[in-house]
Amino acid sequence: MNVERDLHMTRGDGEHSYASNSRAQEKSILKTRPVLHKAVAAAHALSLSSGPGGAMVVADLGCSSGPNTLLVVSEVIKAVADCRHELATGSQPQHVQFFLNDLPGNDFNLVFQSLELIKLAANKDRQEEPLLPPYYVAGLPGSFYTRLFPDRCVHLFHSSYCLMWRSKVPDELASGAVLNEGNMYIWETTPPAVVALYRRQFQEDLSLFLTLRHTELVSGGHMVLTFLGRKSKDVLRGELSYTWGLLAQALQSLVKEGRVEKEKLDSFNLPFYVPSVDEVRDVIAQSQAFDVIHIQLFDVKWDGGDDDVEMEDYGGVESSVSVARSIRAVVGPLIARHFGEHILDHLFELYAKNVAMHLQKVKTKYPVILVSLQAK
Amino acid sequence: MNVERDLHMTRGDGEHSYASNSRAQEKSILKTRPVLHKAVAAAHALSLSSGPGGAMVVADLGCSSGPNTLLVVSEVIKAVADCRHELATGSQPQHVQFFLNDLPGNDFNLVFQSLELIKLAANKDRQEEPLLPPYYVAGLPGSFYTRLFPDRCVHLFHSSYCLMWRSKVPDELASGAVLNEGNMYIWETTPPAVVALYRRQFQEDLSLFLTLRHTELVSGGHMVLTFLGRKSKDVLRGELSYTWGLLAQALQSLVKEGRVEKEKLDSFNLPFYVPSVDEVRDVIAQSQAFDVIHIQLFDVKWDGGDDDVEMEDYGGVESSVSVARSIRAVVGPLIARHFGEHILDHLFELYAKNVAMHLQKVKTKYPVILVSLQAK
Repeated sequence: MNVERDLHMTRGDGEHSYASNSRAQEKSILKTRPVLHKAVAAAHALSLSSGPGGAMVVADLGCSSGPNTLLVVSEVIKAVADCRHELATGSQPQHVQFFLNDLPGNDFNLVFQSLELIKLAANKDRQEEPLLPPYYVAGLPGSFYTRLFPDRCVHLFHSSYCLMWRSKVPDELASGAVLNEGNMYIWETTPPAVVALYRRQFQEDLSLFLTLRHTELVSGGHMVLTFLGRKSKDVLRGELSYTWGLLAQALQSLVKEGRVEKEKLDSFNLPFYVPSVDEVRDVIAQSQAFDVIHIQLFDVKWDGGDDDVEMEDYGGVESSVSVARSIRAVVGPLIARHFGEHILDHLFELYAKNVAMHLQKVKTKYPVILVSLQAK
Repeated sequence: MNVERDLHMTRGDGEHSYASNSRAQEKSILKTRPVLHKAVAAAHALSLSSGPGGAMVVADLGCSSGPNTLLVVSEVIKAVADCRHELATGSQPQHVQFFLNDLPGNDFNLVFQSLELIKLAANKDRQEEPLLPPYYVAGLPGSFYTRLFPDRCVHLFHSSYCLMWRSKVPDELASGAVLNEGNMYIWETTPPAVVALYRRQFQEDLSLFLTLRHTELVSGGHMVLTFLGRKSKDVLRGELSYTWGLLAQALQSLVKEGRVEKEKLDSFNLPFYVPSVDEVRDVIAQSQAFDVIHIQLFDVKWDGGDDDVEMEDYGGVESSVSVARSIRAVVGPLIARHFGEHILDHLFELYAKNVAMHLQKVKTKYPVILVSLQAK
């Protein structure tokens, strides 16, 4: 697997696209709003303090395509507009230069053709006259585990639902040796050595990410990062282990049906790791590059459903189909590349059934880690 | 016609794509090399003079997709590498931030998925060890007749084969009145009032373009602009008038065959104007924003053929088919949107015949205006 080439959400805006199946991710963005708005205000003040003329530079890392991409931009634009509101009347608006980053396989065409919706979204729910700052939106293809910007030019990085993706499958797992039989991620039967490989890859990746971003941020610049994490003390039975474990079970069913070769399943390993809050804290502390302004863990239902819906209504047939769709939108292209496109429909039907059975027993949710950092 | 939405070269890299049919444009880029390299050197020096840390910012306006897009980036990267070669050994390389701009309908996905070819292209023909500067490539969707950047942040603008496109069809022509019957651009039967409309649109557009770019350039910043122009004194029989006149003739044939309604043809007007060098000089002088470092007009064969091929060999069947392909790659999407996709194959067969007949009589070439400017 070549992660930089192969990892991308399902393109377009059709039935199986990420654009049409990313409600849980949307829910997370909405939940992080207050923290994001604070970081925007701080970054805005920072950009003004560097003298007139310079724009505020913001980058969304792993922007994907669809409504959530635009939601992030419009949230930031709104937050900047609010800052301006608080400044003295007559002040010149600060220009905002926005970079939407993702891997080259992302559907940037779809994003670029819907940019005009940002203005509508940013002005929605605003009662006063629209006073949006002038803004410019660029697309920036490339892995955020490489340099993306020149030195010291970014005021604010944002990333949502991306940093649980690893830069690669750990080398030892990718080498062809069957180390994690029947699984695609850490799951009940995963040996401790494989857990250690995944964890080390996470530590290396996050450490590299922090170093790279620190170089690219202006002094005192901000980052708001949201990504899937782990609440469970038992790393073999983490919440996301269920997500992928149930998918591995569905693949095992296809192996039994003779539709997928067992070797294919054994050689499929996700470039993924969900850390606990403590694991995240440790890497940040070791980097010595950032102060933690805020860190928390919150939950999102697998189907992106509202919190105020009764828990007994969560996990019915409708929501398990919705979960299957959202997971297919995320991992469909990777699965199709490894196993072939033809297995997708059947695989995700089985998966929806597995999810339904699981959610009847346990109302598992996605634990989401939100961390707001300031560069030292 | 909504130019911002509808104008884009044919996407992808298939048989009819711009990526596969843009040899004349490539030829022009190669011919402008010496002027571009000088401007890069000047812009590089300018970016260094603003103190350490700041990157050199370069934007290609109307980048399109395909090999020519990458050619421009690799030429600039090579030119920066050459600058560095001339600096003291041990100097830190200047980082280059590259923006590829085009209208939102451009195939940015194709560009982003082939960016790794830039390094190969830039290192081609280089004998010494590759010492390319660190560079970052972003895509920037939007019309260059609007603001694209914050104030004073760009060191060098480049644009090739774009500024003959107007921001819109002149209002009076777009209103529905039949002012230029049977034509799609200025041609032998075009009334003087219509010529005046096109010319005024050109003057307004170029004037706006210069104002916008001047605001976005750092003080003393550079622009290298290449676009189709007119050598003929007779505006009704300009070289590009033949290009579109022969296409209008092919459409007239379809009208006679009953395949296209006459009203459709009469209401189709290109958002296009090719100025003379004097017309360009006048607008630049009036803007008072730029010094002309260099201005010239050179010729490119319609089929992008080499200059050293004998003129009697230019314009045979092969080259007229190649001309038809290149024009289809450029204007195919606009034609398809107005007349329907179904007419394209037949239309461009007729067009190839018209081109062949014309080139047997007159060896018309594209006059290309190259202008290098420095912001006052």
